[in-house]
Amino acid sequence: MQTVTLKVEGMSCGHCVNSVEGAVREVGAEGKVNLSAGEVTVAFDESKVTLQAIKAAIEEQGYDVA
Amino acid sequence: MQTVTLKVEGMSCGHCVNSVEGAVREVGAEGKVNLSAGEVTVAFDESKVTLQAIKAAIEEQGYDVA
Repeated sequence: MQTVTLKVEGMSCGHCVNSVEGAVREVGAEGKVNLSAGEVTVAFDESKVTLQAIKAAIEEQGYDVA
Repeated sequence: MQTVTLKVEGMSCGHCVNSVEGAVREVGAEGKVNLSAGEVTVAFDESKVTLQAIKAAIEEQGYDVA
């Protein structure tokens, strides 16, 4: 299990939090957004999902991952 | 049919637009949000729904209506 904190641009409200955390969950990882910091901390099993796939899932929701 | 533009505080993203327009639709009116202006223009039939009910529906979504 690995934990990484990603900078996410464009999250502005509780709906955004739900979108991002939901996207992370859908690819089989766990995500916790810190809205004021503009960050999401993701925990994932490297044998099951790549960090690249997690970033792609967040970007698909319309947010930029730094 | 009456058209009123309301000032709504707290709308920050596309999800907020959907929430507010959806809430207005649910009480039988039509709403169009202008996100950058922080406004929603609502069109409604006074014999079917009151402006008060429209405001209440928006506030139920967590936004302040001025």
